[in-house]
Amino acid sequence: MSKTAGCCQSCLHYVFDYETPKTLVIPSIRVGCVFRFTQLLVVLYVVGYVCVVQKAYQETDSVISTVTTKVKGFAFTNTSDMDPRFWDVADYVIPPQGDHSFFVLTNMVVTPLQTQSRCPETVQKTFIFIFYSGILTGLCENYSTTVRTCEVLSWCPLEIDTKLPEQALLAAAENFTVLIKNSVTYPKFNLHRRNILPHINSSYLKRCEFSRTTDPDCPIFRLKHIVSEAGEDFQDMAVKGGILGIIIDWSCDLDWWAGKCYPKYSFRRLDNKNPVNNVAPGYNFRFAKYYKTPDGVETRTLIKAYGIRFDVIVFGTAGKFGIVPTIVNLGAALSFLSLVPVVSDWFMLTCMKKRDLYSRHKVTYLNEDAEAEPVSDSSFTF
Amino acid sequence: MSKTAGCCQSCLHYVFDYETPKTLVIPSIRVGCVFRFTQLLVVLYVVGYVCVVQKAYQETDSVISTVTTKVKGFAFTNTSDMDPRFWDVADYVIPPQGDHSFFVLTNMVVTPLQTQSRCPETVQKTFIFIFYSGILTGLCENYSTTVRTCEVLSWCPLEIDTKLPEQALLAAAENFTVLIKNSVTYPKFNLHRRNILPHINSSYLKRCEFSRTTDPDCPIFRLKHIVSEAGEDFQDMAVKGGILGIIIDWSCDLDWWAGKCYPKYSFRRLDNKNPVNNVAPGYNFRFAKYYKTPDGVETRTLIKAYGIRFDVIVFGTAGKFGIVPTIVNLGAALSFLSLVPVVSDWFMLTCMKKRDLYSRHKVTYLNEDAEAEPVSDSSFTF
Amino acid sequence: MSKTAGCCQSCLHYVFDYETPKTLVIPSIRVGCVFRFTQLLVVLYVVGYVCVVQKAYQETDSVISTVTTKVKGFAFTNTSDMDPRFWDVADYVIPPQGDHSFFVLTNMVVTPLQTQSRCPETVQKTFIFIFYSGILTGLCENYSTTVRTCEVLSWCPLEIDTKLPEQALLAAAENFTVLIKNSVTYPKFNLHRRNILPHINSSYLKRCEFSRTTDPDCPIFRLKHIVSEAGEDFQDMAVKGGILGIIIDWSCDLDWWAGKCYPKYSFRRLDNKNPVNNVAPGYNFRFAKYYKTPDGVETRTLIKAYGIRFDVIVFGTAGKFGIVPTIVNLGAALSFLSLVPVVSDWFMLTCMKKRDLYSRHKVTYLNEDAEAEPVSDSSFTF
Repeated sequence: MSKTAGCCQSCLHYVFDYETPKTLVIPSIRVGCVFRFTQLLVVLYVVGYVCVVQKAYQETDSVISTVTTKVKGFAFTNTSDMDPRFWDVADYVIPPQGDHSFFVLTNMVVTPLQTQSRCPETVQKTFIFIFYSGILTGLCENYSTTVRTCEVLSWCPLEIDTKLPEQALLAAAENFTVLIKNSVTYPKFNLHRRNILPHINSSYLKRCEFSRTTDPDCPIFRLKHIVSEAGEDFQDMAVKGGILGIIIDWSCDLDWWAGKCYPKYSFRRLDNKNPVNNVAPGYNFRFAKYYKTPDGVETRTLIKAYGIRFDVIVFGTAGKFGIVPTIVNLGAALSFLSLVPVVSDWFMLTCMKKRDLYSRHKVTYLNEDAEAEPVSDSSFTF
Repeated sequence: MSKTAGCCQSCLHYVFDYETPKTLVIPSIRVGCVFRFTQLLVVLYVVGYVCVVQKAYQETDSVISTVTTKVKGFAFTNTSDMDPRFWDVADYVIPPQGDHSFFVLTNMVVTPLQTQSRCPETVQKTFIFIFYSGILTGLCENYSTTVRTCEVLSWCPLEIDTKLPEQALLAAAENFTVLIKNSVTYPKFNLHRRNILPHINSSYLKRCEFSRTTDPDCPIFRLKHIVSEAGEDFQDMAVKGGILGIIIDWSCDLDWWAGKCYPKYSFRRLDNKNPVNNVAPGYNFRFAKYYKTPDGVETRTLIKAYGIRFDVIVFGTAGKFGIVPTIVNLGAALSFLSLVPVVSDWFMLTCMKKRDLYSRHKVTYLNEDAEAEPVSDSSFTF
Repeated sequence: MSKTAGCCQSCLHYVFDYETPKTLVIPSIRVGCVFRFTQLLVVLYVVGYVCVVQKAYQETDSVISTVTTKVKGFAFTNTSDMDPRFWDVADYVIPPQGDHSFFVLTNMVVTPLQTQSRCPETVQKTFIFIFYSGILTGLCENYSTTVRTCEVLSWCPLEIDTKLPEQALLAAAENFTVLIKNSVTYPKFNLHRRNILPHINSSYLKRCEFSRTTDPDCPIFRLKHIVSEAGEDFQDMAVKGGILGIIIDWSCDLDWWAGKCYPKYSFRRLDNKNPVNNVAPGYNFRFAKYYKTPDGVETRTLIKAYGIRFDVIVFGTAGKFGIVPTIVNLGAALSFLSLVPVVSDWFMLTCMKKRDLYSRHKVTYLNEDAEAEPVSDSSFTF
C-alpha cells in the first residue's frame, strides 16, 4: 500500500481509536459503601441544597415598578392660635399628584402676612450665638445684658419656629386612608403584575381596608395602621414628623410548578429617632403661599410643615428556570463527583486491611533501570 | 544510606512520582465515533449556546439614570362653563420642574371661590350612602323623600365632581411635544451615555420628531404618538386620565466586537383599564390655588385635575467579557466532558458485539481468595 | 443455592463492587514537576484571582435607599430690573419637600402681572421664523420690512426670555449648604445603614461641613464645594443652570473579616455642556404664581427658573459569603484540575526521552484480530 494511505490510516486510527482506562474491580462491600456514600452526599447536596433551597437553577430579573397613591380623608382643626379650619386632601397632601412618595401634613408653624421689610432679629435660644435670618441693615440694639439683636431686612415678621404645638395639629390624620396602586414589570420575562389581584372585584375595593389577618390583599391602608405596624405611635410621630417606608416585596418564583407572584407588604420607619447621632430629627420643610395685597405688594404665608412622608419602596427579584444556571450548577456538582474516586481510593489504600494486595494490583511501579517488564509489586512496599 | 535520607527520598518519591492511569486502546471505529460525537455535542453546547446565545462569559452591571423632560405646546379652551382661556406649560404641567415623571393636564373639574364656611352637603349619586365632605354642623334638612342632606362646615361651595366634561378640555394636548434627555451610567464599567447620540447635531434636534421609521433617534416625542404606540387613543385617555410609561431600554453589549449601546424606546399604558377589578380608574388628583380677598379672607380654587402622567422608566443591563464568568462556564462545561468516557464505556461494554473481549481486557476482577496473581484473563500476563 | 439468591448477589456485586482505574507510577522528577506545577497554577488561580480579587464566593444584593435633603441659606438680590429682595429656602428650593432630587434657583426671567388678554407677538430673534406664543387673533401688522408680527390671545404681556441676566441672580447660592440624610437597606441580608455614621455625634453634625480631607463623613455639603468637585464653576453653571449628580456609592463587603460598609461620595455633572449635539442646554423650567386682583381677575407671575438640579443617586452592591457561589466556583476550578493529567500525559508521551517506554507500559493496544493476548507494544508503533 502507498505511504499516504498508511499515513492517513494511522491518523484515522489516531482520531477514532478509543482509549479507555484499564480498571480493577475490588469486590469489597466496605470500599463500595464508602464510594456509594460519598457519591450520595454530593448528589444530595446538589439536589437538596442547590436546587430546592437556593433555586440555583433559576435565572433572575429585577423589578420595574410604577406607583400611584391617593389619600382620602379630612380633618377639622380648632386651636387657639388659628381660626377653625377644615382640611381636605388639597390642603395637607404635598405634592398633590401622588406618586411613589407622598407627604401628609400633621403639624405646622404658620407665619402669615410676611412681607419684604425690616424687623428686629429674633434671638434663637437654641444656639449660643445669634443666627441671622436676614440681611443685617446695620442697626443693632441691646436686647438684654447678654445678647444684642440687630435689625434685618427679610420676610417680616420672622418665623418663630420654637413654638411648635406639642399636640399634632392634624391628629385626625391617623384615620386618613391611602389607596396604593402598584404595577410591576419583569422585562426579561415580559411579565406584568398589579397589586390589585385578579380575584378582587371593584365592590370589595370600595369598602375594604388592609389587615394582615382579614384583608391581606386590600390595597387601601389606614395611616394609623401603617405606622403602628412599623412599631411607632402615630401621635408621637405626627408632632415632629418622620419618614415611613411602605415596602412592597414582589419576589416571584415563575416556574409553572410554583408560579407564585404576589406582593408582600411591610412597613418600617426609615428616618432615625436616635437622638445621640442625629441632626434635624423628624421631617419638616418650609413652603410658602404667595399673595398680593390690593395695592400689589407681595405677601406670603410661610408654613413650616411637619408631617409624615410615606415612601412606597418596591423591590423584588423574579426567578425562572434557566438552562444556563442549571448547566453551570450541575457542572460544578459533577466536578465534585469526580472527587469521589479520589476519596475512595485513599480509603482503600490506607484504611483497609488488604491495602497491600489492592495497591499491588492497582498500581504498577515502573522500574526505569530495568528496561524490561515492570516489577509487579507496587511502590508502597519499601 | 542513612534512614533520614531514605525517608526523605521516599517522601520525594511520594510528591514527584507521577501516577497515570493505564489505558487500553480500542481500535473500533464505532466506539470511536460515539466517543467523538458525544464530545462534539458538549463542545457545541458550550460554544453555541452558552457563549453565543446566552453570552454567559459576560459580567453584568445595571444602569443608573437621570432624566430631564421638557414639554412644549399651548392650548386654547373656550367652553360654556369657563371663560376663554389660553394654556401654556406653566398652567398644565405638574410638577413644573420636569424630572422622570411629569403630568399633563387634559381635563378638570374646577371649583372656584371656595372659602371656609357652611353649606349643604351635596348628595353623591355615585354612592348609595351620603358621603360627608365636611364636618357636620348638626343642621339637617329633608333633601328628598329618600335622602336627607345636612349642613357641613367645609370649603364651600362643595366640589361637584360628577359633572366631568365628556370631551377632554385640553384635547389639543395631543399635539404637545416633550423633549426627553436621559443620561445613563454603568458604574462598574465607568461608562456614560446619553440618549442624544453623538452623530446628532443641534440643528437636527431643533426640528426633529421621534418616529420609528424615519427618526428613531430623535428625543422629541409628540404626546399623541406616544399614546398611540401604546395602543391607546389619546382623546379617550384624556377624559379620565391615565399613566403612560415611556420605557427606555439601555441594554448594552460592551465587548469591542459588539460595542452596541443605544437606547430603545417603547411605550406602554401602566394603569389598568379593566373595569372589573379596579378602583378609582384613570388618573386624577386634587390641588388648589390659594388667594386672598381684599379683606384678607383666604379663598381657593380647587382643581380636580385629570390627565396623563408620563413615567420615563429607564432600565437595562450592560454586559462585558469577564474572566470569572468565563472560567465558571468553561469549568462547568469541562466537567460535562468528563462524562463523555462514561457514556462511551457504557456503549462499548453493552452495545458492541465484542463487548466480552473488550471488558475482559479493560476490567480486571480481583479474586481476593487467591492471594496470588490476579485471574489470568486480565491484560497483565505478557 | 437458589437462582434468585444468585441474581440478587450478582446485583449486590454490581452495586457495591468498587471499580478503580489501574495506574502506572512514573518515577520521573521532570514529569512530576510538570504535573505539580500545572496543578499549582490552577489552585493559584482559584485562590488568588477568583476568591481574593473577584470575591466570586459572595452572593450579592443591590441597595434600596431613601434620601432626605434640606437646604440652608439665604440671599439678597438688588438688581436694576427688580426690587431689593430677600430670598430664603421657601423661595428658591423647588420642590420644597426635599427628596432625592432638589432644585436650587439661581437665575430667572420674571414676567409679572400676566393676564389672559391680547397683545402683539414678540419677534424671537433666536429663530428665523416667528414662534407663536399664543392663539392668533387674526390681526397682523408690519413689524419691519422683513418680518410682520401678529396679535395673539395669550398670557400678556408675553415673556421675553432673551434678556437673561449674564450674572446669576442668586450668585450667593454657592454658599448655601445642604444636609443629606440617606438610609439604605439590603433586604437579602436584612441590613440597614445610614450615611450618618454611628461614631458621629449631634454636636459635630451641627457645625461640620463635608471635605474629603478633613470631614469625609459629614453629611452637610456646601453647594460651591459640590460643583467644584464635579469640575465645574458654580457661577458659570448658575447662569443657565444644569444638573449635578451627588453620587453615593454604598458598595459593601459584609463578610466578618472585611465588614466594611460606609458611603463613598462623588460628584459629577449629569447634563451635557457640549454645544455641538445638544438642545436646550442648561436646565430651566417655567412655573407661575397665581394671584387675583381685587376685582377677581386672575393674574400670574410667570417665572422661567434657571438653576441647578441636584440629583442624589444612590447605588451599591453588598456581597456576603454564600455557599452556592462558592461551590459553583470551586467546582469550576476542580474541573480544571481534571485537565492537569491530560497536560502531563501529553508532556510525558511527547517531550520525554523515554516516551516509548512510558507509552508501552501505559497504553495497551488491543489487537482484535488475534482474539488472544494483546500485543504488548503500544499503538503508536506502526
